[in-house]
Amino acid sequence: MAEIVTITEVGPRDGLQLIAQAVPTAAKMQWIKALHAAGVRDIEVGSFVSPRLVPQMADSAEVVKQALQIPGLSVYALAANLKGAMAAYEAGAHAIVIPLSVSDRHSRANVNKGTLEHIAAIGDIIEWLRSQPRPVRVDCVAASAFGCSVAGRIALNDVVGAARALALAGADRITLADTVGYAHPGLVRDTVRAVQDAVGQRLHKLHLHDTMGLGIANALIGLQEGIREFDACMGGLGGCPFAPGASGNIVTEDLVFMLESMGYATHIDLPALLAARTAIAPYLPVAALHGGVALAGIPSTYQPTSEAPLPA
Amino acid sequence: MAEIVTITEVGPRDGLQLIAQAVPTAAKMQWIKALHAAGVRDIEVGSFVSPRLVPQMADSAEVVKQALQIPGLSVYALAANLKGAMAAYEAGAHAIVIPLSVSDRHSRANVNKGTLEHIAAIGDIIEWLRSQPRPVRVDCVAASAFGCSVAGRIALNDVVGAARALALAGADRITLADTVGYAHPGLVRDTVRAVQDAVGQRLHKLHLHDTMGLGIANALIGLQEGIREFDACMGGLGGCPFAPGASGNIVTEDLVFMLESMGYATHIDLPALLAARTAIAPYLPVAALHGGVALAGIPSTYQPTSEAPLPA
Repeated sequence: MAEIVTITEVGPRDGLQLIAQAVPTAAKMQWIKALHAAGVRDIEVGSFVSPRLVPQMADSAEVVKQALQIPGLSVYALAANLKGAMAAYEAGAHAIVIPLSVSDRHSRANVNKGTLEHIAAIGDIIEWLRSQPRPVRVDCVAASAFGCSVAGRIALNDVVGAARALALAGADRITLADTVGYAHPGLVRDTVRAVQDAVGQRLHKLHLHDTMGLGIANALIGLQEGIREFDACMGGLGGCPFAPGASGNIVTEDLVFMLESMGYATHIDLPALLAARTAIAPYLPVAALHGGVALAGIPSTYQPTSEAPLPA
Repeated sequence: MAEIVTITEVGPRDGLQLIAQAVPTAAKMQWIKALHAAGVRDIEVGSFVSPRLVPQMADSAEVVKQALQIPGLSVYALAANLKGAMAAYEAGAHAIVIPLSVSDRHSRANVNKGTLEHIAAIGDIIEWLRSQPRPVRVDCVAASAFGCSVAGRIALNDVVGAARALALAGADRITLADTVGYAHPGLVRDTVRAVQDAVGQRLHKLHLHDTMGLGIANALIGLQEGIREFDACMGGLGGCPFAPGASGNIVTEDLVFMLESMGYATHIDLPALLAARTAIAPYLPVAALHGGVALAGIPSTYQPTSEAPLPA
């Protein structure tokens, strides 16, 4: 039996959040359904943040509700504070994703709280969620874990400390995020090992950006260190709109190609995944979608490990 | 002492060969000098092939001659047949790079000889080079070693057989080339191990393309398997001109960023390397140069391993 690697498609959230042009709810849903048809069973569909700051995410409650109708789909929603978590819970999300910046300066700039203070606030959010009748999974993200554009290097001890604090605060699972894409394979290896030592299997996922061209190499070393879940964006969406052509998240299609070629089962059908690009492309700026496999085409040598999407 | 990893810049050859617009010899030399100033000490400066088929390389003899004037630079030139090797030798190249397609069908399509027949011809070339008064290094390339757009999968035994035959024919060093970019990390690991078992340290280098977005990940696994030399192209040049935007070779700048960040010494200065892009950019199609670090800028967290270029 091939080992399973789970890919969470974060395009509808991280990929779209900075797109200036409005994307209609119906278009988001068509895209999400096409992803699901390709075998993707974990999708971060939106975020519950200020619609004034991120207008693209204003319809997240509606997107969550409609996504819940898709059989077998795990619906993730991001929430930055208690109000957002309440709304995500009300909408019915299966998993609520809560980011914490490990960079104290970035945290202050972003949420007007230092990292420690924000951990306490996250503890309150988790406490509230646990007091509700419906169980939800809480995925906490240690953001800027591999470097920060404001603060530069992040001490490994700070990353470990943040992960331990998030575990103590009650996070079900912890993701390490290379928010600005400064990571390199040596740093990923060292950080994953140190955080695994501290919180064990609760470290479950890497969220990587391809800013410096090392995103897939960073995923590979994570895989070697035992990570079996990755966030990724179709077409590498998620780049900064102020740096045209800048890479965003690691490219889902290329990650599937690598994992399936290497003997890991993603249960994502690559041709169907490539076809799903057409559902969202008309709503994106020209050339927003990139990626190796999509541009070059699936090579004749491709032999996927998993033969078909899992039953919905 | 940090381990040294050698990067051969193949941009002036693999990067330019398919560029339609003529690049003046003076521009090539300005670029080569800028690369040298950044610390690059191994450059494949041209190829001795039919100027009718590859007009961009028609000035290779002149480029080799001028490059030989640059102190401390190892000047590589590609030659596809005896006539080319003679011309490369006459021009004074330090290393002559001779490709062999491991794909029999690709070989027949390309040089009108099957792989076995071509190995015999390479043996004759090497014999001629060895009979000359000036010693030159002969680097043989096992091309299409990880898959072929014509023949599809290439049997591992065929790659091992080709490497052994090239060693017997007298190659000083053997490069495995992912000519069309179909490789994935599992295949690179298996192939490198098998060829190392067959020819030992004579396997010295990987030549990787980023077609499917896995180029740097493939380099990483090669590094883990003991490879300490890589070909790369500034800006990822070397893509097919018939697939706009398609990635070419792995990006030199991103590879330097990764290696230096991981504790390997390339003795290449990254800011100077980025500056060298301006020497060639005006002669290339718009947006031909890409790459993560070049677009995003060197992050503040970058701490290179090697402090300065080696003395010339």
